[in-house]
Amino acid sequence: CLDHSYSLSSTTTSEELLRKLNEQKDIIALMDVKIKEMKGTIRQLKVNEAILREELRNKEKLLSMSVIRKKHGM
Amino acid sequence: CLDHSYSLSSTTTSEELLRKLNEQKDIIALMDVKIKEMKGTIRQLKVNEAILREELRNKEKLLSMSVIRKKHGM
Repeated sequence: CLDHSYSLSSTTTSEELLRKLNEQKDIIALMDVKIKEMKGTIRQLKVNEAILREELRNKEKLLSMSVIRKKHGM
Repeated sequence: CLDHSYSLSSTTTSEELLRKLNEQKDIIALMDVKIKEMKGTIRQLKVNEAILREELRNKEKLLSMSVIRKKHGM
């Protein structure tokens, strides 16, 4: 004499839990993609920052040269 | 007469599934924190980029003025 209702509810609970587990797995996969994208964005922004700082240094060098020329009446 | 072994294995399965569900929930919470941090980093990098571009524009304006002065023998 099996306790059918208990077994059924246990199976249903396991099925529900399994379904929730799979939903969460999908959520984790999506967040993983999001994190990878953001890592790429951050890397790109840092590369751009380095380029801008280099350009700034060059301009400042040119400016200082023009100031020196001016002082020497060039 | 309950089928004890089946019920026990169903309960064990449910307990294992519940434990996995909670582990995944923790993982999702950690990824959530990570994503928020990266959003903040990206926002900050973009602010810095705007500042650098503004500085660059200023330097280039100064440089063009010095070129004009030089051309006019100032």
